[in-house]
Amino acid sequence: MDATDLKTTASAGVVTPQRAAFREPLRLKCGRAIANYELAYETYGNLNATCSNAVLVCHALNASHHVAGVYADEPNNVGWWDNMIGPGKPLDTNRFFVVGVNNLGGCHGSTGPQSINPETGQPWGADFPLVTVEDWVNAQARLADQLGIQQFAAVMGGSLGAMQCLQWSIAYPQRTRHALVIACAPNLSAQNIAFNEVARQAILTDPDFHNGDYYAQNVTPRRGLRVARMVGHITYLSDDEMASKFGRTLKHGRVNYSFDTEFEIESYLRYQADKFAGYFDANTYLRITKALDYFDPAFEHNGDLAKALAGATAGFLVVSFTTDWRFSPERSREIVHALLKNKRDVTYAEIDAPHGHDAFLLDDARYHKLVAAYFARIDAEGKS
Amino acid sequence: MDATDLKTTASAGVVTPQRAAFREPLRLKCGRAIANYELAYETYGNLNATCSNAVLVCHALNASHHVAGVYADEPNNVGWWDNMIGPGKPLDTNRFFVVGVNNLGGCHGSTGPQSINPETGQPWGADFPLVTVEDWVNAQARLADQLGIQQFAAVMGGSLGAMQCLQWSIAYPQRTRHALVIACAPNLSAQNIAFNEVARQAILTDPDFHNGDYYAQNVTPRRGLRVARMVGHITYLSDDEMASKFGRTLKHGRVNYSFDTEFEIESYLRYQADKFAGYFDANTYLRITKALDYFDPAFEHNGDLAKALAGATAGFLVVSFTTDWRFSPERSREIVHALLKNKRDVTYAEIDAPHGHDAFLLDDARYHKLVAAYFARIDAEGKS
Repeated sequence: MDATDLKTTASAGVVTPQRAAFREPLRLKCGRAIANYELAYETYGNLNATCSNAVLVCHALNASHHVAGVYADEPNNVGWWDNMIGPGKPLDTNRFFVVGVNNLGGCHGSTGPQSINPETGQPWGADFPLVTVEDWVNAQARLADQLGIQQFAAVMGGSLGAMQCLQWSIAYPQRTRHALVIACAPNLSAQNIAFNEVARQAILTDPDFHNGDYYAQNVTPRRGLRVARMVGHITYLSDDEMASKFGRTLKHGRVNYSFDTEFEIESYLRYQADKFAGYFDANTYLRITKALDYFDPAFEHNGDLAKALAGATAGFLVVSFTTDWRFSPERSREIVHALLKNKRDVTYAEIDAPHGHDAFLLDDARYHKLVAAYFARIDAEGKS
Repeated sequence: MDATDLKTTASAGVVTPQRAAFREPLRLKCGRAIANYELAYETYGNLNATCSNAVLVCHALNASHHVAGVYADEPNNVGWWDNMIGPGKPLDTNRFFVVGVNNLGGCHGSTGPQSINPETGQPWGADFPLVTVEDWVNAQARLADQLGIQQFAAVMGGSLGAMQCLQWSIAYPQRTRHALVIACAPNLSAQNIAFNEVARQAILTDPDFHNGDYYAQNVTPRRGLRVARMVGHITYLSDDEMASKFGRTLKHGRVNYSFDTEFEIESYLRYQADKFAGYFDANTYLRITKALDYFDPAFEHNGDLAKALAGATAGFLVVSFTTDWRFSPERSREIVHALLKNKRDVTYAEIDAPHGHDAFLLDDARYHKLVAAYFARIDAEGKS
């Protein structure tokens, strides 16, 4: 038993989302630029006098800037990584000032396809640029400028969020003291891209998609979003986890020879799909899957990931989960090997967890103790 | 080198599909019955005088009775298991009389949702019953009756086709001398069902589905079928196979920040999806995925597969493929263990192949030699 076991943890409490506005055009990787955009963000804890205790938390596909705590008027709307972040939690807001941000192109408050394009007075829709992980990180860096954060004590994320951490370490080595790269891959495999493509085709061919300009029609491509979410969900869970959670359990004890819900797993997927289709924007979904597909820092180095990471100076914690078949431990080891080739300071852990890719979001004691221990060695005053 | 290496193999040549009509109502597992149905079938080789050399080949999701050879007017339309079946091939039509049959509810010539329901004069559409593996096997048994085949020397199939072989061994032990159960599982896992459910939801929510009665509207739910096929296709290939076949190769050398085809894997999936949506019937697809979901011979034996197989008397060849993540070797071993518990004569091989589930269709030398060797020990005269 160590110190982390004895801590009393608490919620980050009531938080208030904030907005930052940016007038200066941001050059995007696609060649276009975007001006007059806003980012929604939240903070937890207090920025210290030397502005050296800030930690940026990057979100994955369907999360947001609401990382921890609750809203005053929505006491059940708990942040997506609330088990990780708060007073006494692995990322301890008593020590660190934590920033969560909704990425550019998102649908949770930051400027995205749903927003009004000031040049036309209409929603951006199909015309919203295809943003990349690199663009998101550049936008996050500008937010850090506004907040007076010259260097993050750490950037942290899981899955697509972890890709942003990698990109921070590459693009802004001096601003990234540590990078916590969790359930990550250095790029998508053909199979990963294939699943994304299924999701995209479901959305793109939904008659209610209207080539991305569905806002004006007062419809949303719900059917496509439902299928996209179902496909995604399957890849987030392990086969074993699905077997133990649902198995072949029948909703009514027997099959009824119809296309209604028969197995529990169908019921679960449909429920998740309906919920998701009710709040997520299809244009954002399409763009996030593309950002995932495109991310490949080694591409411009002839596939040499070590070269891509050569300029990184951060300390790294890389974590993978044994049953994650979306971004398997093997993919994390590619990152570790590339970092070791550059003689970087890297800690690697493969957590034996049954939950598949989603394990990074769950409250696994060994995983959380590891993260807590890693943060314990980070000096909030900026020396290490 | 053994005898099989020295054989000259040839095509089954030009074959002619045939049709068998059945007037007697067939009781279905769902409780309904179907009368006046037809089955499309093909045969290769010659039935011997004692009718003891017949081998039934059962098809999986999207195949048909066209198992080997070509059609006179379609010389490029090669049967789906032509590499396995023909003169001198592993299933040698010089020795065996091979029967391929399109299952009831199919869309390749047998009575199915597209067919005219004689009672209404309209296509069956949504009213076509949800058929099961058990129903298919019963229908196949009636076809065998018509062909004068009292007992099959072997029944053989891969994937869903292999489930039919298991069912033959259970329902008709005296008519099943051997069962070749390839790339099979004793039932679908929650993950397997989940992928089927994605495919179904894509079809069921396609506005052109019209609750299954789309024939009258002169449309087909192509969008849904496309997505269904893409999902399926991903599960047929291994991650490694996709990586080596497609990797992250770009169609035009660079990304173009659009939703057009960018990666080769996208191009491949779209091509396969379009092709499939052009010929396959959505109502058939829905029913086949349901038949897969429902198959679970152990269900009525409290999950005890050995009890379900207790009455089987066939000799068994069970084959799995190392990279098959749809029906993994572990699932085949469940079948083997259940058979061994019953002291059945069972040969099991786990083929080290990179191709995933689709390996059962491919011309792998070790796999084909194994099947050839198994057939070599079957006495076409019916003694073993």
